Amino acid sequence: MITIVGERLNSTRRGVAAAIAARDAEFVRAEALKQTAAGADFLDVNAAARVGQEIEDLRWMIGVVQEAVETPLCIDSPSPQAIAAGLQAARGEVLINSITAERERAEQILPLVRERGARVVGLTMSEAGMPRGAGERRDLALTILDAAARFEISADRVYIDALVRPVSTESGQGREFLEGVRAIREASSEVHLICGLSNVSFGLPRRSLLNRTFLAMAMAMGLDAAIVDPLDRALMATLRAGGALLGADEFCLGYLGAHREGLLGEEA
Amino acid sequence: MITIVGERLNSTRRGVAAAIAARDAEFVRAEALKQTAAGADFLDVNAAARVGQEIEDLRWMIGVVQEAVETPLCIDSPSPQAIAAGLQAARGEVLINSITAERERAEQILPLVRERGARVVGLTMSEAGMPRGAGERRDLALTILDAAARFEISADRVYIDALVRPVSTESGQGREFLEGVRAIREASSEVHLICGLSNVSFGLPRRSLLNRTFLAMAMAMGLDAAIVDPLDRALMATLRAGGALLGADEFCLGYLGAHREGLLGEEA
Repeated sequence: MITIVGERLNSTRRGVAAAIAARDAEFVRAEALKQTAAGADFLDVNAAARVGQEIEDLRWMIGVVQEAVETPLCIDSPSPQAIAAGLQAARGEVLINSITAERERAEQILPLVRERGARVVGLTMSEAGMPRGAGERRDLALTILDAAARFEISADRVYIDALVRPVSTESGQGREFLEGVRAIREASSEVHLICGLSNVSFGLPRRSLLNRTFLAMAMAMGLDAAIVDPLDRALMATLRAGGALLGADEFCLGYLGAHREGLLGEEA
Repeated sequence: MITIVGERLNSTRRGVAAAIAARDAEFVRAEALKQTAAGADFLDVNAAARVGQEIEDLRWMIGVVQEAVETPLCIDSPSPQAIAAGLQAARGEVLINSITAERERAEQILPLVRERGARVVGLTMSEAGMPRGAGERRDLALTILDAAARFEISADRVYIDALVRPVSTESGQGREFLEGVRAIREASSEVHLICGLSNVSFGLPRRSLLNRTFLAMAMAMGLDAAIVDPLDRALMATLRAGGALLGADEFCLGYLGAHREGLLGEEA
């Protein structure tokens, strides 16, 4: 089945930023519990909103989440120092979000990933910016995998995010992303392919319809992980249907179990 | 955008068979109007239920439909004689449903297709039966395209149906179909790729969720036509979202228009 990274504990969301500032442990705990109950395999934790306080805020948030649930964390920060602090505070399996194909950042963070035996998200962007074409995405993914290999991090611990761009501003970007995912999957059967979906629908109505339709498409092309809101029931139903359709769910047992638990919604 | 063949006027549906037997023109007219209003590009007409009466029944149904709407017909019959009669009764653009890679059937029907300048659905099956693997599906598609070419029918008038099989009985069949679609698309950029979806979900709950998720996946792999119930609003919304996401819908204008007309449903 696809790996779900729950995206809700991110300080770019206003409620989360306020809860962090107020040290509202109940809010954070409830988000951790809800996402875990809905099927999150990792919980993203991002506390980068308050400049100068990120490390302290992140340590607090990690402490609260780990008191509430056993779900592994995805430590999400632009700062290598905050990532190092988060790794110290986090127990067990950890995903680091993120490196890019930029050499300096990769060389700061990959030693931490190796030392911990962690997993790492690699965004297909470089000093030259964001990719447009499928081929660029594949080349940047290979650059990231090469960098990881230099630090003895195997491809199966790397989660490539090929960076979705809005189709509203450039109608070919959905196809370029999908073909990029396919090309990366063809280059490595072991690497994980992850993405945040919501950029694809930026500027359009019915974003949740677009996001879940794109998720199904990306799964067909080789995506095996996603950074999503696990409380979006229609999205999660699409994801479970996708697992059954792609044979990732032997005898459709996961799908049938989700149906019995009422997680697939009503017939409509 | 994807080509929609409306599947509802099929005598395997009980209500349709009864309406044909009773010469209930109002029922047939209403189905034709509803499917056209919902966006059908072709209307499938199948009157094969009553043995010995098919030709008469089909002529009647075609007459009623053509009085009600201008939508082109998809003449659906196992019988070459009924297809010939249907072609005489139908006006304008016509799709014939179907031939296979079986030589005898193809050689009976392809001359009719050529003579009329019609389009034709080709099912990837042969004397040896239904395909299991992606490669078999591609090989059978190429056999059908070769047969069409012998009758001077170009690939862009052929709609290959790579035949979905249920994932409930064999979990790899979804993936084999999708890879088959991809392989056929890679072999010909001109051929159309069509399918009926509902077999994929046979024996499972929440079939409409599975069918529309599979539609999105198949569109990503190259499907550009589908035989569906155009009154299934969630399926049609997926299809319009898919068009916008794949850049088949320049500036997302079709998608935005569908939204304004309330065809994409509520945010949920």
